[in-house]
Amino acid sequence: MKSAFRSAISTALAFSFRSLNPTSHRPSLTLLRPYAAVFFSKHSPLTSMAGGESGTHVPSLATFQSLEKQFEEFRHQLEDSGSLRERIRSVALEIESATRLMHSSLLLIHQSRPVPEVLETAKGKIDLLRELFSKLAEIMRECPGQYYRYHGDWKSETQTVVSLLAFMHWLETGSLLLHTEAEEKLGLNPDEFGLDVEDYLIGICFMSNDLPRYVVNQVTAGDYDCPRKVLKFLTDLHAAFRMLNLRNDFLRKKFDGMKYDLRRVEEVHYDVKIRGLAANGEKTGEQNDQAQS
Amino acid sequence: MKSAFRSAISTALAFSFRSLNPTSHRPSLTLLRPYAAVFFSKHSPLTSMAGGESGTHVPSLATFQSLEKQFEEFRHQLEDSGSLRERIRSVALEIESATRLMHSSLLLIHQSRPVPEVLETAKGKIDLLRELFSKLAEIMRECPGQYYRYHGDWKSETQTVVSLLAFMHWLETGSLLLHTEAEEKLGLNPDEFGLDVEDYLIGICFMSNDLPRYVVNQVTAGDYDCPRKVLKFLTDLHAAFRMLNLRNDFLRKKFDGMKYDLRRVEEVHYDVKIRGLAANGEKTGEQNDQAQS
Amino acid sequence: MKSAFRSAISTALAFSFRSLNPTSHRPSLTLLRPYAAVFFSKHSPLTSMAGGESGTHVPSLATFQSLEKQFEEFRHQLEDSGSLRERIRSVALEIESATRLMHSSLLLIHQSRPVPEVLETAKGKIDLLRELFSKLAEIMRECPGQYYRYHGDWKSETQTVVSLLAFMHWLETGSLLLHTEAEEKLGLNPDEFGLDVEDYLIGICFMSNDLPRYVVNQVTAGDYDCPRKVLKFLTDLHAAFRMLNLRNDFLRKKFDGMKYDLRRVEEVHYDVKIRGLAANGEKTGEQNDQAQS
Amino acid sequence: MKSAFRSAISTALAFSFRSLNPTSHRPSLTLLRPYAAVFFSKHSPLTSMAGGESGTHVPSLATFQSLEKQFEEFRHQLEDSGSLRERIRSVALEIESATRLMHSSLLLIHQSRPVPEVLETAKGKIDLLRELFSKLAEIMRECPGQYYRYHGDWKSETQTVVSLLAFMHWLETGSLLLHTEAEEKLGLNPDEFGLDVEDYLIGICFMSNDLPRYVVNQVTAGDYDCPRKVLKFLTDLHAAFRMLNLRNDFLRKKFDGMKYDLRRVEEVHYDVKIRGLAANGEKTGEQNDQAQS
Repeated sequence: MKSAFRSAISTALAFSFRSLNPTSHRPSLTLLRPYAAVFFSKHSPLTSMAGGESGTHVPSLATFQSLEKQFEEFRHQLEDSGSLRERIRSVALEIESATRLMHSSLLLIHQSRPVPEVLETAKGKIDLLRELFSKLAEIMRECPGQYYRYHGDWKSETQTVVSLLAFMHWLETGSLLLHTEAEEKLGLNPDEFGLDVEDYLIGICFMSNDLPRYVVNQVTAGDYDCPRKVLKFLTDLHAAFRMLNLRNDFLRKKFDGMKYDLRRVEEVHYDVKIRGLAANGEKTGEQNDQAQS
Repeated sequence: MKSAFRSAISTALAFSFRSLNPTSHRPSLTLLRPYAAVFFSKHSPLTSMAGGESGTHVPSLATFQSLEKQFEEFRHQLEDSGSLRERIRSVALEIESATRLMHSSLLLIHQSRPVPEVLETAKGKIDLLRELFSKLAEIMRECPGQYYRYHGDWKSETQTVVSLLAFMHWLETGSLLLHTEAEEKLGLNPDEFGLDVEDYLIGICFMSNDLPRYVVNQVTAGDYDCPRKVLKFLTDLHAAFRMLNLRNDFLRKKFDGMKYDLRRVEEVHYDVKIRGLAANGEKTGEQNDQAQS
Repeated sequence: MKSAFRSAISTALAFSFRSLNPTSHRPSLTLLRPYAAVFFSKHSPLTSMAGGESGTHVPSLATFQSLEKQFEEFRHQLEDSGSLRERIRSVALEIESATRLMHSSLLLIHQSRPVPEVLETAKGKIDLLRELFSKLAEIMRECPGQYYRYHGDWKSETQTVVSLLAFMHWLETGSLLLHTEAEEKLGLNPDEFGLDVEDYLIGICFMSNDLPRYVVNQVTAGDYDCPRKVLKFLTDLHAAFRMLNLRNDFLRKKFDGMKYDLRRVEEVHYDVKIRGLAANGEKTGEQNDQAQS
Repeated sequence: MKSAFRSAISTALAFSFRSLNPTSHRPSLTLLRPYAAVFFSKHSPLTSMAGGESGTHVPSLATFQSLEKQFEEFRHQLEDSGSLRERIRSVALEIESATRLMHSSLLLIHQSRPVPEVLETAKGKIDLLRELFSKLAEIMRECPGQYYRYHGDWKSETQTVVSLLAFMHWLETGSLLLHTEAEEKLGLNPDEFGLDVEDYLIGICFMSNDLPRYVVNQVTAGDYDCPRKVLKFLTDLHAAFRMLNLRNDFLRKKFDGMKYDLRRVEEVHYDVKIRGLAANGEKTGEQNDQAQS
């Protein structure tokens, strides 16, 4: 009986880390030791209940205790993953509010405030984002191999982050923020907590959705060269996306939207060209270029 | 060209390894390092900044090529994960059809065929299931730490498998098939490809849904002791589930259904008792018990 | 009989006061105390226990009477809160019809009637609104601490009122009607019956929904400066809203809509600018400005 | 200007407490002082933006700052009520898990375990519930007059609590737990944080839903007198509810359900009577009575 008891404990321990994390290699025994004691305490209604019955053909006391033990373990596991989820969610919320502030300062670009000024404020938040993502990475370090188990809890926030960083990067350099560059900016170590490629691509689509509005407002403000530049960028981006064989999912839908962004920018470019504004727009264009470089 | 081609390949591989698998620890670093070196020299912000310095703000050829290269890599990755998914799906479909056959033979129990005969046919499929799950494990071995990325592609099939195995186990032993026992039956090695706890629990709920029908048919066939046994089993199971703090999701919904199974069985037990049938039911009961022990 | 009647009344009042209003501080305690005394002497667990002591387990007459008395009290309370609700609803309906008239006269603005004339008619209704809101405040005075219990019965009407007042205020001053200004206009005393912040914010969103149409019609009527002014206003407003961390509810949805109002106005502004119409629009612009200042 | 500044502060302060709590009498000034400083700091993008413009007919810098100030206040208020909500939710969750354990031990009654034993375990949780409800009351003390603003965040948990307490009370005394008795059991002081009458009534309906199942299982266990007792209780309860004029809402729907509970119990009573079991059931009945007294 005693040995049975011991093996029961080890089973319990082995079991819990395994099924909390079917793919991890290091069990979180430290987490589990305390529970083991609990498993065999007679506190719960179930044991007494089983004790009551006898001479029946239903599960013996032994099998019943194993049932109880198993669910006791599940209870702890579900609590663990539940609290883990809460911690993730709270970080995700902080990310969300950081990006919200970032976004509101970036919105000033639509009132054609000088690019450097706008970027400065927005960049101020990047360090905070790095910090928050390193918090996420830290949490995930506790449960290796579970990245995609909890991925759903931070992905949409991450997609927004990518869209903002990519827009800022485009304003600065006129080129696309690459996946690896995004990871660098966020201080992500791809070997332990990387930026999911689909999240990156969706974020890029979100950025593209903001470009038509940007173009319209730039033209209104007299930057008649902007449509040409954005058009070139969006055309390349759209072409690049077309290389991808997207399954019929959210990313696909987002990408389809990019087509309309492209069209709208083409129309604005057309308006500017047909009115011969592109020419006398150069000056403002360059002016604006200085702002950008 | 040839070398470019080669490096493109290795690039693709390296890249897909990394971002296909942001959380794996060992794999592909060797592949990665050299690649990384190349990568950052070419596409670091600096380069793109350079694009900014030159008067024009259309991405330079260099930046454009990096854009193209990145999407070329993504293309490979999405194709890789796409074909991976197809392989998973095809195995999942085989699992599904195996369980369908298993289920149809188990249905004979409702015509009160002798338990051993019914079980024999169903058990015949278990080896096939073991084989199929080891195929899944093999596929997952190619992308460590991705279990939960593709989990959605096999989970519902797995839940059905659990429900059938648990029902068979109950017929044989009168007790609940434990999570570890289920893993053993399917030949799963929890350290590399385990049985997700929620899939197990949902499978158990599915099994519970079949019990009221079973009880009704057993009573019809004259086994008046069956309700008592099933009731005891379901009551313990229900109580055990109540220990769990289920978030309000699919599992929760399934569990809520178990309450109705329980009530239905209680009603049948009530009918049998109030008519004083339980007594002359003993013989069949024992008979059936022998089948079970 | 008469005294029984009287005590029944006071009981009803006392009780409804307390549990109609679990959080109020002063009211009805004097009424309550004596009643409470009576109450507990009669229905304390002890009494019902007594029911338990006597062999039968059907509630004793005593316990049954306490049951009956309690539901008698509930009947009064539900009738009280029911009739209260009806009174609130009828005032809310009056508010609704007053705002409907107000709205229809404001609609003339879209036919570019002179602002002062349009405002004059609409303002005519404000006194009525003040009156109706003071009626609401009066009703609420009867049940302190219940503002949010019945809030749902007047909130949507109040949101419409805010949207109209804010639109009128903008036409007059070109600036946003502040929360405190709205309370003043409606003669609300925030210490007893204030304007809920979310109702105010939702009302402001409603107003924003009307601006694109207004801009389109003003431009049609030759006021080419209008888009610029509305755009500036909406941009500031949108930026201000972005400071808020809105939970994902109705207000959030309304605010998301504001983005489209903003874009639509930007498009109109763009059309005017690109056609160089802004220039010869100044005169009408100023004219209109006089109307506003 | 200076005085304007001062009055602006006081406005801000007055404003916030007012609209955070339109009906409270004591402002939470302490909460607000710190913010006041913030209002006038030039940190936010908005101010700089406003500063940029001049000579336009859109809101003056002054009006713009008031806009910004107001939304700054709203931001704090929404954060305050948001965090308040979180605290409430976390207590509500604790209540939920306490009741879950309570419920699982009460479920043993359906396996006709001796009443005192079952009650003992369940009662063990009541002190915890008192504690948790006093936590809620404490939180609400911070915002007098807001009981019904946040009521939705704890009501369903409270309804479950009532249903369990009422069931336990019925098992002990055979009579209905009164509203005041429920408040006492939970240590609620009705003058500051009472038990909403509708929550109480809904809880009672929930309890009624469990009675048919209880009766069925008691009869199965040989207590043939149980149906009579439950039927008497449910009939009185149903009659009492019928006195109430229920609006067509959730409570109404729950009450309609009670009709089916009543019918089911009548059927069981009929089964027992028609089989002449009631008679030879007395012994078990009394036996059970001893268990109850």
